[in-house]
Amino acid sequence: MPRVPVPPEVAEVLARPNPAVVATVAPNGTPHSAATWYAWVDGRVLLNMDEGRRRLDYLRANPAVALTVFDGENWYHHISLLGKVVSIEEDVDLKDIDRLSISYIGEPYNNRERKRYTAWMEPERWHSWPLAK
Amino acid sequence: MPRVPVPPEVAEVLARPNPAVVATVAPNGTPHSAATWYAWVDGRVLLNMDEGRRRLDYLRANPAVALTVFDGENWYHHISLLGKVVSIEEDVDLKDIDRLSISYIGEPYNNRERKRYTAWMEPERWHSWPLAK
Repeated sequence: MPRVPVPPEVAEVLARPNPAVVATVAPNGTPHSAATWYAWVDGRVLLNMDEGRRRLDYLRANPAVALTVFDGENWYHHISLLGKVVSIEEDVDLKDIDRLSISYIGEPYNNRERKRYTAWMEPERWHSWPLAK
Repeated sequence: MPRVPVPPEVAEVLARPNPAVVATVAPNGTPHSAATWYAWVDGRVLLNMDEGRRRLDYLRANPAVALTVFDGENWYHHISLLGKVVSIEEDVDLKDIDRLSISYIGEPYNNRERKRYTAWMEPERWHSWPLAK
């Protein structure tokens, strides 16, 4: 599996607000997966979670993370990134979830009451289908 | 997170050939995720892998598995299943991958040369968005 950086044509897909799934590992060694919004920012991945999400605890205990992204323009194209979360911080003014929400649905995030946390993922390896040239 | 069985309206979505991502855990404790075809058969999940897939080795060492399914008719609906693989067997005559291929693209699987393996996943817990009634 190739190491980063991803080639430009892969980065171009990642830069769009695509459907994606984030996978983490629970302390008992089982995988956990969930659909997620993400943003691709200078080769890193912005993730943002409600304070109650299990994967927030899982990532604090084990920062290894995987992300599979579908090309929203073609279901049969997809890209997976493997790496680790290098920071988890409260999204104090909700600017990160607003960034994601505006990217995906064109408006700021609806729920202003719950605390949210931002995790930055640093990809290490990647693969795609079809294989990038 | 509720235990199985899933309610009928969730099973109805799962029964369609939707985009999905399977997550496994590598021996070093890191998650691995990849897009996958699947079939929902009597409350279990049919998965099928080329003999060279990393996740085949990962599942042999650790049968815990997670699957996130997007409702192909609405990106914002998704369902995740957590459970374990209860069997891994060679798909000798490629009947299982043909079943998946016909379900997703309407024709038998193209590559008849490579060996493939079928894994049956038994879900234990599930969650969905929006929350099922």
